[in-house]
Amino acid sequence: MVTRLSHFFLRTLREDPADAEVTSHRLLVRAGYIRRQGPGIFAWLPLGLRVKARIEQIIREEMTAAGAYEVHFPALLPREPYEATGRWEEYGDAIFRLKDRKDADYLLAPTHEEVFTLLVKDLYSSYKDLPLTIYQIQDKYRDETRPRAGLLRGREFTMKDAYSFDYTDEGLDASYMAQRAAYERIFSRLGLEYVIVQADAGAMGGSRSEEFLHPTAIGEDTFVRSKGGYAANVEAFTTLAPEPIPFDGLPQPVIFDSPNTPTIETLVAHCNANLRAPAPGIAGPATDGATEWTAAHTLKNVVLAVKHLDGTRELVIVGIPGDRDVDDKRVEVAFAPAEVEAATEADFENNPFLVKGYIGPWSETGAVLGEESATGIRYLLDPRVVDGTSWVTGANIDEKHVHSLVAGRDFTADGYLEVATVREGDPAPDGSGPVHLARGMEIGHVFQLGRKYADALGLQVLDENGKLVTVTMGSYGIGVTRILAIIAELNNDEKGLIWPESIAPFDVHVVATGKDEAAYALAERLSGELEASGLDVLYDDRVKVSPGVKFGDAELIGVPRIVIAGRAAADGQVELWNRRTGEREVVPVADAVVKLTRR
Amino acid sequence: MVTRLSHFFLRTLREDPADAEVTSHRLLVRAGYIRRQGPGIFAWLPLGLRVKARIEQIIREEMTAAGAYEVHFPALLPREPYEATGRWEEYGDAIFRLKDRKDADYLLAPTHEEVFTLLVKDLYSSYKDLPLTIYQIQDKYRDETRPRAGLLRGREFTMKDAYSFDYTDEGLDASYMAQRAAYERIFSRLGLEYVIVQADAGAMGGSRSEEFLHPTAIGEDTFVRSKGGYAANVEAFTTLAPEPIPFDGLPQPVIFDSPNTPTIETLVAHCNANLRAPAPGIAGPATDGATEWTAAHTLKNVVLAVKHLDGTRELVIVGIPGDRDVDDKRVEVAFAPAEVEAATEADFENNPFLVKGYIGPWSETGAVLGEESATGIRYLLDPRVVDGTSWVTGANIDEKHVHSLVAGRDFTADGYLEVATVREGDPAPDGSGPVHLARGMEIGHVFQLGRKYADALGLQVLDENGKLVTVTMGSYGIGVTRILAIIAELNNDEKGLIWPESIAPFDVHVVATGKDEAAYALAERLSGELEASGLDVLYDDRVKVSPGVKFGDAELIGVPRIVIAGRAAADGQVELWNRRTGEREVVPVADAVVKLTRR
Repeated sequence: MVTRLSHFFLRTLREDPADAEVTSHRLLVRAGYIRRQGPGIFAWLPLGLRVKARIEQIIREEMTAAGAYEVHFPALLPREPYEATGRWEEYGDAIFRLKDRKDADYLLAPTHEEVFTLLVKDLYSSYKDLPLTIYQIQDKYRDETRPRAGLLRGREFTMKDAYSFDYTDEGLDASYMAQRAAYERIFSRLGLEYVIVQADAGAMGGSRSEEFLHPTAIGEDTFVRSKGGYAANVEAFTTLAPEPIPFDGLPQPVIFDSPNTPTIETLVAHCNANLRAPAPGIAGPATDGATEWTAAHTLKNVVLAVKHLDGTRELVIVGIPGDRDVDDKRVEVAFAPAEVEAATEADFENNPFLVKGYIGPWSETGAVLGEESATGIRYLLDPRVVDGTSWVTGANIDEKHVHSLVAGRDFTADGYLEVATVREGDPAPDGSGPVHLARGMEIGHVFQLGRKYADALGLQVLDENGKLVTVTMGSYGIGVTRILAIIAELNNDEKGLIWPESIAPFDVHVVATGKDEAAYALAERLSGELEASGLDVLYDDRVKVSPGVKFGDAELIGVPRIVIAGRAAADGQVELWNRRTGEREVVPVADAVVKLTRR
Repeated sequence: MVTRLSHFFLRTLREDPADAEVTSHRLLVRAGYIRRQGPGIFAWLPLGLRVKARIEQIIREEMTAAGAYEVHFPALLPREPYEATGRWEEYGDAIFRLKDRKDADYLLAPTHEEVFTLLVKDLYSSYKDLPLTIYQIQDKYRDETRPRAGLLRGREFTMKDAYSFDYTDEGLDASYMAQRAAYERIFSRLGLEYVIVQADAGAMGGSRSEEFLHPTAIGEDTFVRSKGGYAANVEAFTTLAPEPIPFDGLPQPVIFDSPNTPTIETLVAHCNANLRAPAPGIAGPATDGATEWTAAHTLKNVVLAVKHLDGTRELVIVGIPGDRDVDDKRVEVAFAPAEVEAATEADFENNPFLVKGYIGPWSETGAVLGEESATGIRYLLDPRVVDGTSWVTGANIDEKHVHSLVAGRDFTADGYLEVATVREGDPAPDGSGPVHLARGMEIGHVFQLGRKYADALGLQVLDENGKLVTVTMGSYGIGVTRILAIIAELNNDEKGLIWPESIAPFDVHVVATGKDEAAYALAERLSGELEASGLDVLYDDRVKVSPGVKFGDAELIGVPRIVIAGRAAADGQVELWNRRTGEREVVPVADAVVKLTRR
């Protein structure tokens, strides 16, 4: 159909909105696609709604092709199902909670695993009913601490969330791969390049978990990949631990004075000024070839405070090689759903044996941290701290350190933990070579929930032998509004948006210019012919608006194919304008119709 | 496309759901269209979602044809706009309110006048931008006191709400009529008979207000219509007041003993036993021809307690002819947004001059109620109590009444009020004759909001003379999920649903039966041919299910056109089954395709 700009509900803005932090937000507001209603909450104007509907249509088609059926759940849901899985508590302040007039608890659902599980439990009871994949395209809510970047991190957002149900692990794998393949088709159709990376399932539980990331320097997520095909986001990266070193012949620990060395930097300088040069490889492969002391020879002990869901607060000490830092995102994932913060002065005061800047797992009188200690503080080591590696670390006495302290001989851990920063060149855990760091934006997430939700909510079916078995599930999400914003973020120039044809709000933007009636008559005819060919046409028929304003609006709105009926209209000619390449070409109107309707 | 029942996400139920109060709820749950998630909150299963999408598509097409543009607002909205119009308070317990993590107030919007007004204010500034009509199809929330009747009165529901913006009253009339005409087309396409009745705008404010009612004996709303074309719901009905009667020669009031007559019935019996017969017409036309005392000669004074939004509680006394009652719905509308309840014992104790059962506006010592009284209690009269009518009513003394009390001479009102019951045969206010009472279900509502919201929120535009004028608005609503339930309520039999073709979940339901492979092969071929003709086919390809169960499911699901491939399949014949009429016809498969694809 033909939509006339003279009547269309649209106002483009010359100025950027004051609160826009990112390009997509700025352009989507300026071009009249969305409008802010509150922090992280937006209204969709006709242009925005059209693009959103086209993305949803592509997703629907691929979900149908993958054998998934569409359902729709309410956003407002009672507390009970989320209570049963523990997520009512786990989500903390991140969900909107409310009460009804009878004082019953409700939430605005941030994700729907529970109610999908209960729905299938309600309707299905036999292995013959499975496999099943059902999905919805639905508005979700999360009370983000800091909603930002427009639609990229909103508090209300539209998601496609699909859930698969199987009664065998092999079935889950097949359902998972079907959704994964559908995602590949969806992102291809949307013109979105992607990398599939291993991801941590985080608070969702489960086993296999992969993210679809669009690689881009402006991405908010960091991921690694090796030439050999390994790819993971940093939260999911696992360390390839070196081989243990035999204890035989390793020197015994020596405590030494190290005045005023509370940091790794000051400690390393002190060692090089006062100790003999280190033996090769004493702290493992990271120190190979070092002729003097480096941060990699030191063991840094970081005190973290972990706030558990039940309200308790636990101190944990993490030991990592001194040349790395604790990565906040990896910490968050490692301890989720608990929250982690740095230890406070009060924590140190309450635990006087923790000598700030000089903490270590060992003292001459015995184990201070680790399995054999009596402090009750968990001590978790980086996987690189394998048995037989020797370290310089705190001696638990002010201004004293110890060297030649050997892991496995002089100290032990309560466990291992993946929280150290990942670096360019770190070996991929699958042996496929060194990894490279890159940045990307998450555009989709597929993961195997396994039996967590089915267990918690009692979803079982009878198998071939008449035995009750617990169902295993997968969860598959695409943020529709987020995808829209990402595509806008990636497809624009200084003049405005440039939509991929598959999701542009209109197929063609026809502009009539000048005061010559012939231009309008020709534009009218052209619009009608394009409409008759099944195209959606935006026709700028405004008569009292200058050509400059019309062209500026066309560039801002970003329909990729523009046709101008102007001076040459009297000769039956129009100008084809490719918004993406900038190419312009004057052609007879009949040729224009042929070119524009050719797909 | 072809959807195969062997894989489709559907389970039909043999039993009615325990909580289903109405047919539509019962059948929509049993046939697998919807599933309860909480009180008045439902999930949509694939069948239900398909019907809902088809209704929405019809609405979208007619909105587009009427020149309206689609937008989409969030359900979660900040308090401020609703505070500005007073509705944050007015809605009382009827809305869901919540706070975000920063303790800011939000609501789940029950209707969106405010934010539409603000959006237009944000984008438009000139009369040249108008007229404008924009709409959304969106999920709304109301915390109903008693959610019931399935989708008919839910707490979450989908609505199409449109809003028009004009700068002149004539413009508003034109926009209003365009939406009204679109509604007529929508309901015709949905196969829903309708009556357009005058309605009270209620809490929405505004002037012209009409409801589309579907006339049906099972309707929850009562409306009246005259043969001369008047139609109104009872809340909007206005009384045709009789002409005043000259006071000249009317007898003076007489107090008389009336022991044990606290009710109209006992009072009338007492009058007939103890008083002379009434003069003709003394209480107005309603008593014409009465040769003895009737309830219509008496003036009933009802004490109501009005709870205002500001928390104050006011007693109001309503005087109506004794042959009518106070209509609760009319009271609700008359006092909205205040709430009304019956006066309590405490109210009578606090106001000892109110002698229960013997209340009246007059006593020998002066006015007890009305303009000249000093009680501070408002006295509001039914419009039939015109000047010069004589009444029997309470004398404000226990067991005493007064007769020959003349309105306008002996007592006055503080105002008039339309709260008396409307009766079959009451005269239409437009003089078009007596009205008949009927019942109906509300299926749409169009009304002129006027300048209420634009005033409250400052929506003004510059007119032709460069002068700021306040915009005038209309509001137009259709409950999508409610409509779906109403259509289900009206289209069924004891076997199940029978959808109108325009909104059926599938165009054709193909059933293969028996153990003969020929039946399945033919059904498969038929389904493919129907799909190729652009039809949506549900194909029951289940092999281990009996014909009886398949037919039962087909009847329950309610696709209006069913085709059975069974025993005759070997001869290339199928049976066409019209679900609505029950007609069955065996035809060659080629004929079936022709008949089914002919629209």
